[in-house]
Amino acid sequence: MASETARIEAFSDGVFAIAITLLILEIKVPQPSAGPLAIQLARQWPSYISYVISFSFIGIMWINHHRLFNHIRRSNHGLMIYNMLLLLGVTFVPYPTSVLAAFLGKPDQRLAAIFYNGTYFFIAIFFNLLWRHAKSPKDRLFGSDVDSYAIAEINRKYAVGLTAYALCAVLAWWSVPASLCWNVALALFFALPHKGVRTAHADL
Amino acid sequence: MASETARIEAFSDGVFAIAITLLILEIKVPQPSAGPLAIQLARQWPSYISYVISFSFIGIMWINHHRLFNHIRRSNHGLMIYNMLLLLGVTFVPYPTSVLAAFLGKPDQRLAAIFYNGTYFFIAIFFNLLWRHAKSPKDRLFGSDVDSYAIAEINRKYAVGLTAYALCAVLAWWSVPASLCWNVALALFFALPHKGVRTAHADL
Amino acid sequence: MASETARIEAFSDGVFAIAITLLILEIKVPQPSAGPLAIQLARQWPSYISYVISFSFIGIMWINHHRLFNHIRRSNHGLMIYNMLLLLGVTFVPYPTSVLAAFLGKPDQRLAAIFYNGTYFFIAIFFNLLWRHAKSPKDRLFGSDVDSYAIAEINRKYAVGLTAYALCAVLAWWSVPASLCWNVALALFFALPHKGVRTAHADL
Amino acid sequence: MASETARIEAFSDGVFAIAITLLILEIKVPQPSAGPLAIQLARQWPSYISYVISFSFIGIMWINHHRLFNHIRRSNHGLMIYNMLLLLGVTFVPYPTSVLAAFLGKPDQRLAAIFYNGTYFFIAIFFNLLWRHAKSPKDRLFGSDVDSYAIAEINRKYAVGLTAYALCAVLAWWSVPASLCWNVALALFFALPHKGVRTAHADL
Repeated sequence: MASETARIEAFSDGVFAIAITLLILEIKVPQPSAGPLAIQLARQWPSYISYVISFSFIGIMWINHHRLFNHIRRSNHGLMIYNMLLLLGVTFVPYPTSVLAAFLGKPDQRLAAIFYNGTYFFIAIFFNLLWRHAKSPKDRLFGSDVDSYAIAEINRKYAVGLTAYALCAVLAWWSVPASLCWNVALALFFALPHKGVRTAHADL
Repeated sequence: MASETARIEAFSDGVFAIAITLLILEIKVPQPSAGPLAIQLARQWPSYISYVISFSFIGIMWINHHRLFNHIRRSNHGLMIYNMLLLLGVTFVPYPTSVLAAFLGKPDQRLAAIFYNGTYFFIAIFFNLLWRHAKSPKDRLFGSDVDSYAIAEINRKYAVGLTAYALCAVLAWWSVPASLCWNVALALFFALPHKGVRTAHADL
Repeated sequence: MASETARIEAFSDGVFAIAITLLILEIKVPQPSAGPLAIQLARQWPSYISYVISFSFIGIMWINHHRLFNHIRRSNHGLMIYNMLLLLGVTFVPYPTSVLAAFLGKPDQRLAAIFYNGTYFFIAIFFNLLWRHAKSPKDRLFGSDVDSYAIAEINRKYAVGLTAYALCAVLAWWSVPASLCWNVALALFFALPHKGVRTAHADL
Repeated sequence: MASETARIEAFSDGVFAIAITLLILEIKVPQPSAGPLAIQLARQWPSYISYVISFSFIGIMWINHHRLFNHIRRSNHGLMIYNMLLLLGVTFVPYPTSVLAAFLGKPDQRLAAIFYNGTYFFIAIFFNLLWRHAKSPKDRLFGSDVDSYAIAEINRKYAVGLTAYALCAVLAWWSVPASLCWNVALALFFALPHKGVRTAHADL
C-alpha cells in the first residue's frame, strides 16, 4: 500500500530539491569591473537574507510534506491535483524571493514584502487544502495504523499557520523588518517537532 | 516485475520535475531602476499566463505518464526510445513558453501561440506513439492484471487529444485568446479522472 | 544485493535528468524589439541542431548507463570515483553545446565542432574506464547471473565507440557538417539494442 | 528500518545532483562578436579550475553523505534539521565558485579564495554537526549492525577535515594557488576509501 503514494513523493521530492537549489542562481555574481569585491559582497545583504529565509521556508515545507505523507498512504485523483497545486506554489518561490532581494531597502520594499509573504500565505492555503482532502471522511487516505494524536497536532498547526501567514503579509504594510522576523519565527514554529514525536520517531 | 520500468520512471520523474521547476526562471525579475514595482509586476501578465498554462500542462503530462506506467509493467528498447522522444518534448516546453510570454499582446503573438500550441501537438503525437508501442500485440508491455476498461479509456482520450491539440494550434491563427482558453479546457479534460477510477483507486 | 548500487544509480539518474533538461536554457528567447519572430526563430537553426544532438547524446548515454548497471550489481570505492568522472563529462555537455550553437555557421565553427566532439571523445574514455573497472578480474562487480554474451557485446561496442568519437573530432577539421552527421550516426549505433535483447527483455 | 532515512537520502541526492549540474551554467559562453574562439576559451581558465574543484568537492561530499547514511539507519527531527543545514551549504557552493572564477587572477583574488574556502569550512562544520547528532548517546541513530571501526575512522577524518579546511581559508591570505592546491589535496584525502573497505565492500 505504501507504494501507492511513492511516485507522488518522488516527484514532489524532485520539485522541492530543484526549487531549493535554484535559489542560489538569483544572487548576482560580483564583477571585477564593478568595484572592490568586499563592497560588492557586502551590498548584497538583501540577497543573502531572502536566500536564507526562502531556503528555510522550502526546507521546512519539505519536512512538512514528508510528515503529511507519513499519514497519507493511499492516493486518488484529487490528491494528485491538490499536490500539484502545492507544487505550483513551491516552484513559484524563487520569483518573489528575487523580487524581495531586488527591492529590500529600496522605496518599493513594502510591496515586495507583501508579494513575498503573500506567496507564503497562498502556499499555506494549498497545504490546508491538501490536508483537508486527505482527511475528509469521504476520501480518508490514511493508512490503517493512523496516529490520531499526530493528526490532531497537524490540524492545529495548519489552522494557526494560515492565520499567521496572513498576518505576516498584512504586517509588511507597517514594517518590512517586522514581517520578515515574523516569517522566520513561523519557520521555526513549523520546524519544531510535533509533541510526542521523540517517543515515536520510528514513525517519522 | 515492477522494477523493470522503475528506473525509466525515476528518470522521467526527474525530467518532469526539473522542466516544471525551470519555468519560473523565465519570468524576468523587476529592477528598482525600471520604475514602480506595482507597474512592473502588472506588466508581466503574459508571463504569468504562460507560466500557469505550462505548469498545468507539464503537471498533467506527468499525471498521464504516471497513469500509463500503471499499466506498462515491462520494458524493452523501443519503450526507452519512445519515452526519450516524449521527454524531448517535455524539456522543450520552457522555450515556447518564454516565446509566448515575450510576444503575447505584441504584433507577432499569433505566430508565438501557434509555436506554443504546436509544441503541445507534437507532445500529443509522442504520447500516442509511446502508448501504441506499449499496447502493440507484438510487444504487449502490460502486466498480467491488465484493466481493459482503463486501457480503452486511455485509447479514447489519446485519440481525442491528438485532434484537439491540432485544432488548438490552428485556432491560434484566428484568435490567440480562444486558442489559449481551448488549451486550458484540454488540460482540464486530461486532468479529469478516468471513469470508474474512484472505485478502483488502489490501482492509481 | 541490488541495493548496493541503488543510490549511485539514483544520483546518476538525477544528474542525467538535470543535464538533459538544462540544455533548453541555452536557446536564447527572441525579443519583440529584435525584429519579426519568424526570422528570429529561423535564425536559431544552430541552436536547434545542437539541442537535438546533445539531447540524443545524453539520452543515449543514460540508456547505456542503465545497461551497464544491469550487469554491475556490486559497488566499491573505485566504481564511485569512475562514475563521478563520467558524470563530470555529462554535466559539462551543456557548455560545448552552447559554444557550438553560438559558432555554427560562423568562421570559428571548426574549432567549436572539435571542442564539441572532443567532449564526447572524453566521455567515451570515461565510459570505458568505468566498464573496465567493473569487469576487471580483481573487482568483478557483476551479479552472479552474469550474461557473458551481453558483456562481450558491450566490450565490442565500447572499443568501437572510442575510435569512432576520436574520428568524429578529427573529422571536424575537414568538414563540420560531416562530423555532425557522423555524430548522429554514432548516437543511432549506440541506441540500437544489443543483439538478442528482444528475447531477453526481462533483463533490460 | 532502512526506509526511515530513505526519503531524506532521496531528497539529499536530488539537491547534490542539481547543485553539481548547475555549476556548468556559471561558465560564460563565448560569443562570435568577442574575438577568436580559441582566445576566448583559453581566457576562461579560472572558470575551468573552479568548475573542476567545485565538482570534485560536491562529488566527494555526496560520497561522504552516502557513507554516513550507511551507518545512520534511523531518523529523527534533529537529523532532518542538521541535514537541511548541510544542504544549505551544498546549494550555496555555485555562488562562491562563480565569485572565484570571476576574480581569479584579478587584484581581489585573495578575498575571493577566502570566501570560497570559507564556504567549505562551514560545510565541514555542518558535516560534523550532523555526524555528532547521529552518534550522540542520546539519539544513537545507527543500525544494530554498527561497524565501530568504520565509525572511528569517520570520527578521525572529520576532526582532521575541520582543521584542514580552516587552514585552507587562512592559507588563501598568503597564497591563493597554495590554498587551491591544498583544497585539491583535501578532496583526494576525503575521496580515499576508508581502510578495510575493500574487505567489506558489500557494506558500501
